[in-house]
Amino acid sequence: MKEFLGDDFLLNSPTAIELYNEVKDLPIVDYHCHVDAKEIYKDVKFNTITEAWLGGDHYKWRAMRNMGIPEKYITAKCDDYKKFVSWATILPAMAGHPLYHFSHLELKRYLGISTPLNERTAEEIYAKANEVLKDLSVRKIIKKANVEVIVTTNDPIDSLKYHKLLKEEGYEVKVLPAFRPDKAINIEKPDYLDYLQKLSEVVGKSITSITDLKEALLARLDYFVENGCKAADHGLDYVPFNLKTSYDASATFQKAKSGERLTREEIDGFKTEMLIFCGINYCKRNIAMEVHFGCVRNANKDMFLALGPDTGFDCVNDANHVDNLYNLLDELAMRHRLPKTLLYSLNPKDNALLISMMGAFNEYPFKGKVQQGSAWWFNDHKKGMEEQIATYSAGAPIATFIGMLTDSRSFLSYARHEYFRRILANYLGNLVEQGEYPISELPYLKKVIRDICHDNVVAYFGF
Amino acid sequence: MKEFLGDDFLLNSPTAIELYNEVKDLPIVDYHCHVDAKEIYKDVKFNTITEAWLGGDHYKWRAMRNMGIPEKYITAKCDDYKKFVSWATILPAMAGHPLYHFSHLELKRYLGISTPLNERTAEEIYAKANEVLKDLSVRKIIKKANVEVIVTTNDPIDSLKYHKLLKEEGYEVKVLPAFRPDKAINIEKPDYLDYLQKLSEVVGKSITSITDLKEALLARLDYFVENGCKAADHGLDYVPFNLKTSYDASATFQKAKSGERLTREEIDGFKTEMLIFCGINYCKRNIAMEVHFGCVRNANKDMFLALGPDTGFDCVNDANHVDNLYNLLDELAMRHRLPKTLLYSLNPKDNALLISMMGAFNEYPFKGKVQQGSAWWFNDHKKGMEEQIATYSAGAPIATFIGMLTDSRSFLSYARHEYFRRILANYLGNLVEQGEYPISELPYLKKVIRDICHDNVVAYFGF
Amino acid sequence: MKEFLGDDFLLNSPTAIELYNEVKDLPIVDYHCHVDAKEIYKDVKFNTITEAWLGGDHYKWRAMRNMGIPEKYITAKCDDYKKFVSWATILPAMAGHPLYHFSHLELKRYLGISTPLNERTAEEIYAKANEVLKDLSVRKIIKKANVEVIVTTNDPIDSLKYHKLLKEEGYEVKVLPAFRPDKAINIEKPDYLDYLQKLSEVVGKSITSITDLKEALLARLDYFVENGCKAADHGLDYVPFNLKTSYDASATFQKAKSGERLTREEIDGFKTEMLIFCGINYCKRNIAMEVHFGCVRNANKDMFLALGPDTGFDCVNDANHVDNLYNLLDELAMRHRLPKTLLYSLNPKDNALLISMMGAFNEYPFKGKVQQGSAWWFNDHKKGMEEQIATYSAGAPIATFIGMLTDSRSFLSYARHEYFRRILANYLGNLVEQGEYPISELPYLKKVIRDICHDNVVAYFGF
Repeated sequence: MKEFLGDDFLLNSPTAIELYNEVKDLPIVDYHCHVDAKEIYKDVKFNTITEAWLGGDHYKWRAMRNMGIPEKYITAKCDDYKKFVSWATILPAMAGHPLYHFSHLELKRYLGISTPLNERTAEEIYAKANEVLKDLSVRKIIKKANVEVIVTTNDPIDSLKYHKLLKEEGYEVKVLPAFRPDKAINIEKPDYLDYLQKLSEVVGKSITSITDLKEALLARLDYFVENGCKAADHGLDYVPFNLKTSYDASATFQKAKSGERLTREEIDGFKTEMLIFCGINYCKRNIAMEVHFGCVRNANKDMFLALGPDTGFDCVNDANHVDNLYNLLDELAMRHRLPKTLLYSLNPKDNALLISMMGAFNEYPFKGKVQQGSAWWFNDHKKGMEEQIATYSAGAPIATFIGMLTDSRSFLSYARHEYFRRILANYLGNLVEQGEYPISELPYLKKVIRDICHDNVVAYFGF
Repeated sequence: MKEFLGDDFLLNSPTAIELYNEVKDLPIVDYHCHVDAKEIYKDVKFNTITEAWLGGDHYKWRAMRNMGIPEKYITAKCDDYKKFVSWATILPAMAGHPLYHFSHLELKRYLGISTPLNERTAEEIYAKANEVLKDLSVRKIIKKANVEVIVTTNDPIDSLKYHKLLKEEGYEVKVLPAFRPDKAINIEKPDYLDYLQKLSEVVGKSITSITDLKEALLARLDYFVENGCKAADHGLDYVPFNLKTSYDASATFQKAKSGERLTREEIDGFKTEMLIFCGINYCKRNIAMEVHFGCVRNANKDMFLALGPDTGFDCVNDANHVDNLYNLLDELAMRHRLPKTLLYSLNPKDNALLISMMGAFNEYPFKGKVQQGSAWWFNDHKKGMEEQIATYSAGAPIATFIGMLTDSRSFLSYARHEYFRRILANYLGNLVEQGEYPISELPYLKKVIRDICHDNVVAYFGF
Repeated sequence: MKEFLGDDFLLNSPTAIELYNEVKDLPIVDYHCHVDAKEIYKDVKFNTITEAWLGGDHYKWRAMRNMGIPEKYITAKCDDYKKFVSWATILPAMAGHPLYHFSHLELKRYLGISTPLNERTAEEIYAKANEVLKDLSVRKIIKKANVEVIVTTNDPIDSLKYHKLLKEEGYEVKVLPAFRPDKAINIEKPDYLDYLQKLSEVVGKSITSITDLKEALLARLDYFVENGCKAADHGLDYVPFNLKTSYDASATFQKAKSGERLTREEIDGFKTEMLIFCGINYCKRNIAMEVHFGCVRNANKDMFLALGPDTGFDCVNDANHVDNLYNLLDELAMRHRLPKTLLYSLNPKDNALLISMMGAFNEYPFKGKVQQGSAWWFNDHKKGMEEQIATYSAGAPIATFIGMLTDSRSFLSYARHEYFRRILANYLGNLVEQGEYPISELPYLKKVIRDICHDNVVAYFGF
């Protein structure tokens, strides 16, 4: 029996251990996350472990609701200790869940706590964790986790004030913005016109046409690029595609401006126009485009009305994406303006599709120009990662993969990189153990795992 | 090498064995099946093993047709021995098939036969099995299997005569009805008006409007509840949803009454109306709603015309369900009338979707109010169960799961609960062995497995 | 640690090894491939390993593009050695990829080379491989691989000249044509009328109506049958089905003839008409119908325009197939003219669906009349095969399966049969080791694996 989270955690062979040792001390390049640059600049501290863990992590909230915990111990204002005890009480029920592993890895790696968390140990762990957190600022966590690059996700209207201050200060970790223009594209949303107003203020020009909108976005994109932006991100429920010649995006924009309700065809047409416009301009600036899709947001409207978005009520979408997705990539490729592209679907049934899709759009001089990103969100667990890695390896050279990201709002999440590296090392090591890759070629395999865990992502984005 | 069906069958570690020992003697709560309460009341016996095994099990018939067995040895009137020999002859060809395991487990556990069945042993086993069956009545099987609760599936027009007689008699096992109003909802079916007539006779009121229909169903639902009903079941090919304000379910009902052909939109609208009506009323009565979908019934019409429904010609549906499914749940949640809900899809590609969906609708004070049911029908095998359990664990606290059911027409099927418990124990035990769950927390894990194998289902339904 | 590609490659237990030994020397029946009968007749040799490996294998080209190799070393005219070095250089990056295994198995089994291929060993291996190839003609490879039957894939207009010559010559291996009338059915393609012209020349009759077309196809089908044809093949992006009584295929044909653009409904209607027509006539002649679907061809149009079809730019389709597929089978079954049918989807999400579908259409006297074919194309790897075998076993008697094919353009691909046999032996052997199949029944299991690896396919097609 293995020790819980021991040295050989998730590593089932000597070769796996050897491969893991090759990468365990490599710096972390967290190329997609949702932390706040301001918190890094201010080097904030957390008053309690509850604040760090349960303040905004709707993944944990969802698990608590599953277990029948009342909302008052989840999102309502309530004593931090009570919330923590609620979480501690349900944790032993989560055998096999990634949060069981992540929580204990975070306790162990960053807070020096190896005691399993449950309702009996909650009090002691709460006290000890809070004690450690008194001294453990955000920057200390980042240093302890050996982070080299952090890419935050930012709206085009973001001033990037703290990214700039961090750079001016000469902070040793690169903190770079990613450009996420969803709000400028989601023309069907009720607050779209408000958003246009804000964007217009930021660029200092009124936005009265789609051309104005594009110009405003380009101005912001260039501003982002000046501030180190190497990546853009698009969050889509499904992949839209409507490029009919009869369609007029400009007219849709005017219709939205006048407050009229748009048809699905108009919405898709507008989004297609904007995605292609963005893609072209990312390509020109050598920015990588991330596309996240396959999600139903706010499926439970009653709770959405009560708590707002990103509170744990999203679910996996099972729409068919292939036609729109390849049409989008193809349209950009036909114009010779397909940027580096990372594809993420929330539905694991899409793994095989995405791996095959990337193969159809890769091209010199890029290694893995278009690729499936690592197992996303609900798939970010052992089984999900194993399946993504195995599907990728079976369909494309695994050495092209740029590997792991946290996609997290929490500074304690860097432990997920360790989790990924162990799973990857175990997968590759097993190939050698099973006679599927020659032990004599181990130096190549070591390069492969170093590439996936660090070197590829640096080269891909150009950090 | 392990012994065939030995003590450590499906258990690959000491911890797995320890966890299995924790639950192996727990009573069985078979919360969804298709046995006949009359057969329990009458305490019937089977003349032959053929009657018990091949009388109505279209899962076995299908396997026989796959192997090229002529229909005369499958569904036609024919010597029981010949049918049994046909089955015995193909069984060794079914390596890795759940029926290989189920058949041998049933022989071993209930009939005391450990010899593998094949065409050479068929004669001897046939004789021995029939000898044992002479004395092994339905109630003796139920007792031997340690069954505590049996939930049968019943049409609203069912008199529940035998459920009542069993209760009056003081039978030690709870035999309760589940309410399955499919025939009252499937307005497109050719025998719909005949069914309305029967329902009208049972409630003693004519049904001339949708209001009458709803009243009749409520009357029957209340009658079921008086007789211990805790669960309702809906069998859907796909999940319908049409709640357009312009739609008029009452008009559709009248159209159907007049014998006119309905459009797909009308059919979906009517079904949506009825599903929401049912859901609201289940919620009011604290009845759990089971929803089974993702099936193409009677795909082979030629054989359907020859043999009727439920004869082995159904297949997995690959429709996209997410939009209709979350809209249905959401509509009920918005009205604060979402009942406890169990979701089953016949397509394993839906596993991840359903686990994510349940998370969006769970709420205090229920533990696992909305949940994916255990691997259904064509997925009810080792691989299917392992994947369902692993997906569930990775996406939600596995401790919320209410576990296994037989969904069977046969009283010998209780061995499937053993099968499930072994697979579950193996999954959980492996977590400990692999350092993914601390051995120090084993008492929690023992509670988790006891909950899943027994306590959860009792608490969930309120048996 | 196991030796790379050692005797126990992919075999993880003594029983697996015993089962593999049972089948390893069985002849290969390659019932579906894309080699050229002319090359067999002429007994061609390859000038270099580059010609044999990289001349037309777009699966390798795709991997090279993924790794960022410039097109000039892939498809352009270029020094053979440079292309080989490019391939050798990327191969170590393909840990876990089937081409890593296939390439090294081919080197070892046919060229006597056991050194792992990489950029350092490329020169030596290139020289040695070319030396061996000087003497290793196509027929010698076929003999060395112990091939008994080769079924090529041929257009109806093919003269089958070389199939006839091989037969006349008394060549010890059966080289038979399969009938693939895609070009006669794909009415929406720009070169459709040109194709009709060619077909009309071959049959010596003008084709001015759909009746003429059908007659021409039947004439060619009968010609194929005279020349040993036992199989037909249809490659579909998705499964079409439109049998509305209002639809007129004859009118669609005339519309196409006049150069008018067809609607999707017309195209689907025409294809449905033709597929049913073909199915009926295959059934009458006892020819098996293979249906390959779930593919997006030429997703990257820019590269399609540059390099043409079959150059590595296809991807997996995620369309929903169930309704059209069962309607097609059902229509043929209703007419009692459903031929033996092999179903292949490029999307592994369809595995469970296809296994359930086959069960609904099987019938006496065939064993596995309708069945899912082995893991196809992008799924033709260890994980894909394991999943297909496990899904098949769990849903139908695995003994019905007709097993492996190469689907290859290369004569060196026969090593894939060894790969499949090892994976199958490992799966079945594991059942015994794990107590899921009794060791006392091993003789049955040996028959099962012999059936799947050889006897079934001979009986199924009637070779």
